[in-house]
Amino acid sequence: MKKYLIGVDVGGTSIKIGQFDLEGILQQKWDIPTNKLHNGENILKDIATSILHKIDVQMISGIGIGVPGPVSNGYVLNGVNIGWGRKNVSEEFYHHFPYPHIQIRVSNDANLACAGEVFQGSGKGYKDVVMFTLGTGVGGGILVDGQIVEGINGVAGELGHMQIDHVHQIQCNCGKKGCTETVTSATGIVNLAKIKLSQSNKQSMLRSLDSFSAKRVFDYAKQGDELAIEVIEEASDYLAYAMSLVTLTLNPELFIIGGGVSNAGDFLLDKIIKHYYHYVSSLITNQKIVIASLGNDAGIYGAAYMVK
Amino acid sequence: MKKYLIGVDVGGTSIKIGQFDLEGILQQKWDIPTNKLHNGENILKDIATSILHKIDVQMISGIGIGVPGPVSNGYVLNGVNIGWGRKNVSEEFYHHFPYPHIQIRVSNDANLACAGEVFQGSGKGYKDVVMFTLGTGVGGGILVDGQIVEGINGVAGELGHMQIDHVHQIQCNCGKKGCTETVTSATGIVNLAKIKLSQSNKQSMLRSLDSFSAKRVFDYAKQGDELAIEVIEEASDYLAYAMSLVTLTLNPELFIIGGGVSNAGDFLLDKIIKHYYHYVSSLITNQKIVIASLGNDAGIYGAAYMVK
Repeated sequence: MKKYLIGVDVGGTSIKIGQFDLEGILQQKWDIPTNKLHNGENILKDIATSILHKIDVQMISGIGIGVPGPVSNGYVLNGVNIGWGRKNVSEEFYHHFPYPHIQIRVSNDANLACAGEVFQGSGKGYKDVVMFTLGTGVGGGILVDGQIVEGINGVAGELGHMQIDHVHQIQCNCGKKGCTETVTSATGIVNLAKIKLSQSNKQSMLRSLDSFSAKRVFDYAKQGDELAIEVIEEASDYLAYAMSLVTLTLNPELFIIGGGVSNAGDFLLDKIIKHYYHYVSSLITNQKIVIASLGNDAGIYGAAYMVK
Repeated sequence: MKKYLIGVDVGGTSIKIGQFDLEGILQQKWDIPTNKLHNGENILKDIATSILHKIDVQMISGIGIGVPGPVSNGYVLNGVNIGWGRKNVSEEFYHHFPYPHIQIRVSNDANLACAGEVFQGSGKGYKDVVMFTLGTGVGGGILVDGQIVEGINGVAGELGHMQIDHVHQIQCNCGKKGCTETVTSATGIVNLAKIKLSQSNKQSMLRSLDSFSAKRVFDYAKQGDELAIEVIEEASDYLAYAMSLVTLTLNPELFIIGGGVSNAGDFLLDKIIKHYYHYVSSLITNQKIVIASLGNDAGIYGAAYMVK
């Protein structure tokens, strides 16, 4: 009987589930809502029920589960977005999925986005990869020799919380100031634009708006709005600086830039590359840096990658 | 016949060679001078000759060689301190050591110091380890799952060149400004002391000296000299900040602090730990941070570790 990998990506609103063949080709995918009631105690049961409803258990080779929050050695340490505290996910999953011969693995969602891109996306064929996911916040994922690096406290790859900005010192949700996230996420780009609008007298289409999104900043920058361009240059510079610090630590084969902000494509990538070499040119001249290609599906691909 | 591991550490002045049993117990060690004439072309021949003169080739299980400069996949990319450019070390070593069944491996000396501490020093038993070697400069070494991380360009673990100081912006030998090395090495501690002496009116025993070493700054700090204490606090803060950035990347089980500066022992370590938690306390509360224990022998231990 043909076997399949199941990749699950648990988000704060919905849970994505994907069925993949053993080569990683997506066969079908679907969503179920995330039930956060009672500290999310039904989430794993809902996932098990949904999978067993859709797929004959004898066809399942393994199930990978991505969760928001730090994970180390199979334990989610603090799944605050979905109501979880510390939890041994695979052990609890087997209560609802009584097939102990089927491998269950769990990891952090941002790590799995990186693994997903390596499995079937723009990182295919690479083994030493670092990904920055620039969304509302900034997630990070790291693969060394094809293995996800979680860290002893599940904190590895928390690249969004490197404190790299010593100028604006914007407050981060994590409690610290100046984290990568405060100046390179979608929120961070809006932060930088607001600062620049208040500190500069330069004309800008952004001045006519009461509020605006990072996408709007990109749109105006692409149309030649000088102030908007300066904002994107500054955000790219901060990201490039964070990447330079990671380079001096891991010197990966490949950097992947993902998340909603990366939809800006080459317009963003070219600026990141320019600033990156400003920081590392004496050491490196040929770094591969690419935009992610799997979008929101990267998590389910990465979850499946864990059990392939 | 009993077998032995050979660890070689090539320095700019001398080459250390150690003979270890398979458990990593040092049996004997000796030095030969580093002949840098003609771009160091005799170095590998000298090593091979010296080993074969001391040890029966049938007793050699493997030879590990540490070199100053970036190494990736067996190639030294730029061994500038010993006159080498790009070189396939093991291939060339076999010209002088015609025993192809005996494994030869090469890596960067700072990476091997870390591996050595993991093999037989203060990192024994750990697998995910980051080491800062605070000497005249600052070297770094990284082990993930027990394996040395070299990076695609051999730049992994170049922690001394993370540009972390945005205040003093001291020129580094690498061409950049504000590298970890400029504010945490022995030279960096003297740099910080000179800056503080010129910017502060505070009394200090350091003022009576025309020139001084990092050791002198530590000695006076231990005697209660306030300005000297401030210098050590500042250097410790910079190192702790660099460690926090590495934590958000790799979250290792253990940090090891080595090199001559680490001879200051707990006086330094306590300050590093205090500043480290200032940066990471929201994520981590139980990080292991220790002082290295093998001193200048770490390199030969690490070289032997590669071939065990």
